[in-house]
Order: sequence, then C-alpha cells, then structure tokens
Amino acid sequence: MPMRTLKLTIAYDGTDFFGWQRQASERTVQAAVEDALRPIEGQAVVITGAGRTDTGVHADGQVASVSLTASIGTIELQRALNATLPGDVRVLDIVETPAGFNARFDARSKTYRYAIWCEEVMPPARRRTAWHVPYSLDLHEMQEAAALLVGTHDFAAFQAAGSDVKTTVREITSSKIGNEPSSPAVVYEITGSGFLRHMVRNIVGTMVDVGRRRIPSESVAAILASRNRARASATAPAHGLTLVRVDY
Amino acid sequence: MPMRTLKLTIAYDGTDFFGWQRQASERTVQAAVEDALRPIEGQAVVITGAGRTDTGVHADGQVASVSLTASIGTIELQRALNATLPGDVRVLDIVETPAGFNARFDARSKTYRYAIWCEEVMPPARRRTAWHVPYSLDLHEMQEAAALLVGTHDFAAFQAAGSDVKTTVREITSSKIGNEPSSPAVVYEITGSGFLRHMVRNIVGTMVDVGRRRIPSESVAAILASRNRARASATAPAHGLTLVRVDY
Repeated sequence: MPMRTLKLTIAYDGTDFFGWQRQASERTVQAAVEDALRPIEGQAVVITGAGRTDTGVHADGQVASVSLTASIGTIELQRALNATLPGDVRVLDIVETPAGFNARFDARSKTYRYAIWCEEVMPPARRRTAWHVPYSLDLHEMQEAAALLVGTHDFAAFQAAGSDVKTTVREITSSKIGNEPSSPAVVYEITGSGFLRHMVRNIVGTMVDVGRRRIPSESVAAILASRNRARASATAPAHGLTLVRVDY
Repeated sequence: MPMRTLKLTIAYDGTDFFGWQRQASERTVQAAVEDALRPIEGQAVVITGAGRTDTGVHADGQVASVSLTASIGTIELQRALNATLPGDVRVLDIVETPAGFNARFDARSKTYRYAIWCEEVMPPARRRTAWHVPYSLDLHEMQEAAALLVGTHDFAAFQAAGSDVKTTVREITSSKIGNEPSSPAVVYEITGSGFLRHMVRNIVGTMVDVGRRRIPSESVAAILASRNRARASATAPAHGLTLVRVDY
C-alpha cells in the first residue's frame, strides 16, 4: 500500500506524563499516541514530535508527523484515536501533508506560554498549570527585560546545564509579558525558531527575579551576553509551561 | 479559653475527593480541613459546611463555620492551614463572626455553575471541570427553559431518587445559560435559597436535552409540575459542577 504522511495537532495535560518522548517504561505522550495508532496501522508506528516537551509540560498545540499505509480518512482516524487515547491527551486535528513532511525539521517557529500565579493563595483549579509565586511582580520591569530577548542571540546562559548542542544561537521573534484577562495571573509568551533545553523555564526564572526587583531589567542583556548559565536564575517549574503552537 | 466562631471560605478541586462530608475511610474535604485544624486547636475540631457537595463536585467558594478556642489570628490561621492542606483544597479567607454563626443554617443563598463542553473534542485541560456533550446546543431554547425555573417551586422532579426531605419546595432567584467568554463552553448558573440532592445536575441533564431539541423548552414547566423524577432527564455528571459562592 502507498505511504501517506499526516500532520497531527495534539493537546495534552502534561501532569501525569513523563514528557513527550517515548521511554522504556514510563508513561509518555509519544508512546500513548503511537500505541493508539498501532492497531489502526496493523503494526508499530513511530511519530515525530515538533518538540520534546519535558515531564509536566503541557501542550495546546504540539504537532507530530507520521507515515501510514492505512487508508482511513483523517476525520475517522481522529475519532478512532480520541476514542482510545486517555483523557489527558487529545488529537485536535489531522491533515494530509506532502511526503517527507517532518514535524520537527520543518517547524518554522514555536510559541510557548508560561503562567505565574502571583496571589498569596494558589487556587486548586490552577495548581497544575501555573507556577505559584506569592509576590507582587513589577510588570513594567519584566516587560523591559522580555523585550531584550527579541532577536538572534546566543542563549547559552539560558540553556540547561550539561546540554550538548552544536549551536546555542536562536532567533526569538516575540517575547511578551502581560496579565491574563480577568485574573491575577501573569503570562509570559515567547515565539522563536527554536529553543534550547529548559530555555523558556530558565528565562521565566530570571524574569520573575526581575519582577521581584532582585535583578534590574537591564541586567538581562548582560546575563545573555555572559553565555554563563550560572548568571541566570533558577529554572522555573515545568507545570507552568505550555507549548501553544508550532508554525510551518 | 473563650470560644470564638470563624467563617472559612474554601476552594477545592473535587476530582480526588469523595465529596465534602467526613466519612470513615474516604478522603473528603471536611476531613482534610478538620485534620489541618486539629494541631492548631490541640484537639479534634468539627466544621460545618454550607452545603455537602457530592464526590467530584468542585468549589470556588464553599463556606464553613467552626468554633475554636485557639487565639491565633485569622491571617496566621489561614497561612497555617494552607501550609498543611493538600494542593487541591485551599482556604481563601477567614473572618471572625458572632457566636452562633452556622454556615449551613444561616446561608441565605447558594450559587452553582455548571460547564458543558460542546465541541467534538474535549480539551485535556478542561476534562476535570466540564461535561463533554459533543452536540451543538440550542442556547435560545435552553434560555427559555432556564427562565421557567425562577421562582418558588416544588422541585421534586429534580430531586435524587430515594431522597427523604421534609419539603421539596425551593426558591430559585436566578437561572441563566450563556456562553463562556472566548470559549465554546456553555455555562449554566443558578442561585437559590437551597437545593435538593442532585437538583442542579438533574436540571442540567434536562437542559441539555432541551438544547439538543429532544425536549421542547416549554415542557420543562410540565416536568416541574409533575413532581415526578422519571419525567426529568438523566443526572449530569458531577465534575461539571462548581459551588461558586454562598451568601449570608
């Protein structure tokens, strides 16, 4: 049977997953989707995610590519997958793509959102999707700092310790802090061509220190220029982070 | 030491609780709060909730009354409780009240919200707090039906089977259906002097049948007048329901 290539848009609550990437014995999103595809294809299937989200990170619009021989229609395939997937992962959309489409290598940009809850008490309904920072944050200072990240920079200072990638240069096209509508939550949204491991969470950790006036906003340029992970702040926790969308 | 009476406002994610009321061996909200109060008071404490929410039902603003001898300030008490309570329950506010205040008997009205997700795919982030009804609902018909419930009526038709209460007459002061802002969710909000067991969920089950045009909106008056539980629709699931607030 001829192979066809499909693009799947996937949402998940990352709380109970050990991240995206299939692992030998842990519950992961990639494994859940591959396991749901297997009986439809009649054999093991491997999918390629646009990005490997870490344990606890959520997605509103992760994208994966897959090659299948099964001739099932995209609507029927989506229904069949959602009928067997656990409730914390859902296929939102499936489209046919030209052969060779690769969700990882063809991604032009990704957008992440990070939610911070700044009141003293963390409402139970938000505890899985927002970082509790019980301090008032100076939004203006954070906005100044966020703007400094836009452009093509070497983000080595915001990379997870021990990472080994060819280049730590990335292009950020948007980096904005604002209030969530009718909520005390502060939301950071960042769009870029690609992200280093823990990069968004390390940026958010630093931004929160700017918001708490422990670091002046203009120092973020110096931290960036230092290329020194030790200059940036602690990594913000995974559960505040959501992969919002991937653009091609 | 003199007794003082306090009014606690409490929020919880009901997913992992067997409802409000303390039970011998199950995890309940009342037991969680009482257990957190015990070391502060130095002995077992009993709290009185405004309403006994069922297993899986959430609260943004449940209210409980408690009598204590401990002289701890209300702010410090709130902090101490939230420091020991599990993350799915939080004390939002504590105020001193006149002796004799009883959260249950002094409540003038309660407001409940019920969320219904009407698109084909249930987003993982909403699966714990909205009922998935993958059909388009006729909001206008539902609004007509909702309005018929306002006033003082005998709600026996919407009472859980097997209930045994003195009177099934209740006064509803507001009953409204609308769209959640920037979301495909439909939200029903009802305020009344009191509610029978499963009353809101039975009303919502019936409303959804009206929205799906299985029942004409005007029939809701006949269902109400019948006082016959068998005439109303199936009970909507608990996880879509939230106790929003209790007024005194």
